[in-house]
Amino acid sequence: MSNNAKKKIVVIGGGTGSFILLSGLKQYPVDLTAIVPVTDDGGSTGRLRDEFGFLPVGDMRQCLAALASDNGHLQKLLLYRFDKGQGLKGHNLGNLILTALEDIVGSEPQAIAQAAKIFRLKGRVLPISDQLVKLVAQYSSNKTITSEHKIETHKLADNETITQLYTTPEAKINKKADQAIKEADLIILAPGDLYNSIIANLVIQGTKSAIKASKAKIVYVVNLMTLNSQTHDFTAADHLSEIEKYSGKQVDHIILNNQSISQDIIKAYKHHDEYPVKDDLDSDKRVVRLNLLDDSAYQKPKGDTLKRSLLRHNPAKLAKAIIKLVS
Amino acid sequence: MSNNAKKKIVVIGGGTGSFILLSGLKQYPVDLTAIVPVTDDGGSTGRLRDEFGFLPVGDMRQCLAALASDNGHLQKLLLYRFDKGQGLKGHNLGNLILTALEDIVGSEPQAIAQAAKIFRLKGRVLPISDQLVKLVAQYSSNKTITSEHKIETHKLADNETITQLYTTPEAKINKKADQAIKEADLIILAPGDLYNSIIANLVIQGTKSAIKASKAKIVYVVNLMTLNSQTHDFTAADHLSEIEKYSGKQVDHIILNNQSISQDIIKAYKHHDEYPVKDDLDSDKRVVRLNLLDDSAYQKPKGDTLKRSLLRHNPAKLAKAIIKLVS
Repeated sequence: MSNNAKKKIVVIGGGTGSFILLSGLKQYPVDLTAIVPVTDDGGSTGRLRDEFGFLPVGDMRQCLAALASDNGHLQKLLLYRFDKGQGLKGHNLGNLILTALEDIVGSEPQAIAQAAKIFRLKGRVLPISDQLVKLVAQYSSNKTITSEHKIETHKLADNETITQLYTTPEAKINKKADQAIKEADLIILAPGDLYNSIIANLVIQGTKSAIKASKAKIVYVVNLMTLNSQTHDFTAADHLSEIEKYSGKQVDHIILNNQSISQDIIKAYKHHDEYPVKDDLDSDKRVVRLNLLDDSAYQKPKGDTLKRSLLRHNPAKLAKAIIKLVS
Repeated sequence: MSNNAKKKIVVIGGGTGSFILLSGLKQYPVDLTAIVPVTDDGGSTGRLRDEFGFLPVGDMRQCLAALASDNGHLQKLLLYRFDKGQGLKGHNLGNLILTALEDIVGSEPQAIAQAAKIFRLKGRVLPISDQLVKLVAQYSSNKTITSEHKIETHKLADNETITQLYTTPEAKINKKADQAIKEADLIILAPGDLYNSIIANLVIQGTKSAIKASKAKIVYVVNLMTLNSQTHDFTAADHLSEIEKYSGKQVDHIILNNQSISQDIIKAYKHHDEYPVKDDLDSDKRVVRLNLLDDSAYQKPKGDTLKRSLLRHNPAKLAKAIIKLVS
């Protein structure tokens, strides 16, 4: 790949899924754009959102850390979470840096541009919208929940599913995000919280039409485990069906892990009523099946006391599989 | 000056005085070391010191900001002070970054080395000691005050002076600071809080002997105004006398401003019982008198609600005067 013809890859998602994808992809000479939702309202991000009235910073911070050119202490610094200090406890330093930058430069897009410069990012990060909105989920039980954080902490009842996701108020796509999607060679729908991290981008007005207008191939990386708040009992086909419903377009490639998961990890997840996602896409020609697990135990950022999944995609394996699709 | 023969300049001080000196000096091809006290225990720094048990970060942060290679938003970011947010209000982002780094890498010297790398500093910053100690002032009134912050907020009574400054417990000089002083071509005793920022370094065990062993010329930059907590009624000769008492060595050059101060500014200071430092060093051949004031109004970092002096040395004018002394 020459520098002039760098492939344009857009990663749509948030949280750890985007972090892993970007960490792997930044090792390749590609033009990377991470697009993140603006609906996070829990934890450190939620507190800052309430107190400063800025767009949520948590997903941004994960992407900044992933794209930071120094893989050592800078990344640790951006992910650092205070585990003591009155009022500091639970806050994430990367969130505080982004909040301060936003206050200094006056807008989140400018703050991210500054952060990209200061931390020498290998790629760029864009919010899916410039509007601060709330996520709303309607359930098959006729329940409606407003707030990403509340959706995340609502454990689905048996057979209960999210039937519709949208934002209140409606929000328009950020212009640069729109352009990035339209000009992409490859759009990746990242692994992660299906509704809160991935579809939360797709429900923003203009995302669907940008994807439709784009000539990019679309890759979907299926989650390893179900989530008791969002995808209880979901098979791979169930995930895919929701992705295609909200993106309005057929996916070109589906990446699925087929490496077996250890019983210890399965047991730990079972405790939360979460299970490996069943591969029921046997006859689907679009599926790429690979060994994709990260065998090293996940190292929590120092001070991080959040509940976190133990099982991850391996950034290098995942990136290699994806790069093959654009080469 | 060739790169091989870069003059080694050590700035001893803290706070805004060191910030201004370093901001000016970093424009020149010199080898810069900032040495800062470890006795600050007020404000954001004091809270972090209490809660995390690390060396105080406030003076470090000022020096990091001054030496940051990008003069724009990075400097603003390091100096940014939160003016809202439960528990965040009053905290300085640079302090939080240094605290997080210290927690990640395990020691303040390593944290500063990491910060130097991340923020591409044009120089280095060293704590005068690795020991976390308290500053003690004995007064002519026989009063004793323990705590830098309390010394700073104690308004001197008529004729009351600080007769002795020391730390509790005694602390030893940091090895790198010792070496930097011994190998310096020029040692600058910065303007700033005479006892709390400058002499607080000199009273650390080993500093005096390092200065004695050094072949460096010593420059003292006299404060523009008296401080009601430390140098009430002090003339230039009074300042100098204390500096020479605690450093144990004659100063080679004394830099004094002789630009007149506007009546508006004098009035503002008078309100706090603070006055221009009288120049009574007429016959002293070591004195360099220059126009050194910063004519532009001092721009407070966004969110900064601290009481701050309006009058400053101009970084470029001051640095030019100093560079002449080593050229």
